[in-house]
Amino acid sequence: MDNLFAAIPAGLGEEWIETMAAGPGVRVERIVSTGQVSPEGFWYDQAQAEWVVVLEGEARLRFADMAHDLTLGVGDHVLIAPGRRHQVTYTADRTVWLAVWWTA
Amino acid sequence: MDNLFAAIPAGLGEEWIETMAAGPGVRVERIVSTGQVSPEGFWYDQAQAEWVVVLEGEARLRFADMAHDLTLGVGDHVLIAPGRRHQVTYTADRTVWLAVWWTA
Repeated sequence: MDNLFAAIPAGLGEEWIETMAAGPGVRVERIVSTGQVSPEGFWYDQAQAEWVVVLEGEARLRFADMAHDLTLGVGDHVLIAPGRRHQVTYTADRTVWLAVWWTA
Repeated sequence: MDNLFAAIPAGLGEEWIETMAAGPGVRVERIVSTGQVSPEGFWYDQAQAEWVVVLEGEARLRFADMAHDLTLGVGDHVLIAPGRRHQVTYTADRTVWLAVWWTA
């Protein structure tokens, strides 16, 4: 048995992504951010659906189709449909996300 | 945007299960337990794979193939393969689980 908040390396320079579980067409990931944001002008544009929740820390998402950023605190979750362009504009020093991906 | 720890009715008598997101062959559920356990002699025997994590509270799982119960605190997660018989033997007064189900 593992813990979502344990076994996180110290001094991470980049986002730390690990698969917690996976099956046919589905993947559960833990993502640890430590202040990283998307590069200027970069937009995620994903083929799979992504449901994501912040479990520790805080983050902001910008969607190309929304006027204002979305601030996600602990427990806040959002479904990102395939092809919906978005950026990460803020992450707290230690932000733990859980993401569930599937082929839509 | 919704929050995993919000909009939980007070005075729940039974487990409270809601689908947070779903796609083809996959479902993300929030389960709120308030002390419920499996009935004596009842075993879950599921056709789908279930990955489950405790996000608030505490719970114990008993697997038919294990000698000792598994205690899950906040962040602890476990993958339950299809057909692996198990029971819930304890849940704290307010236990919030996140479960991801998929067709294996």
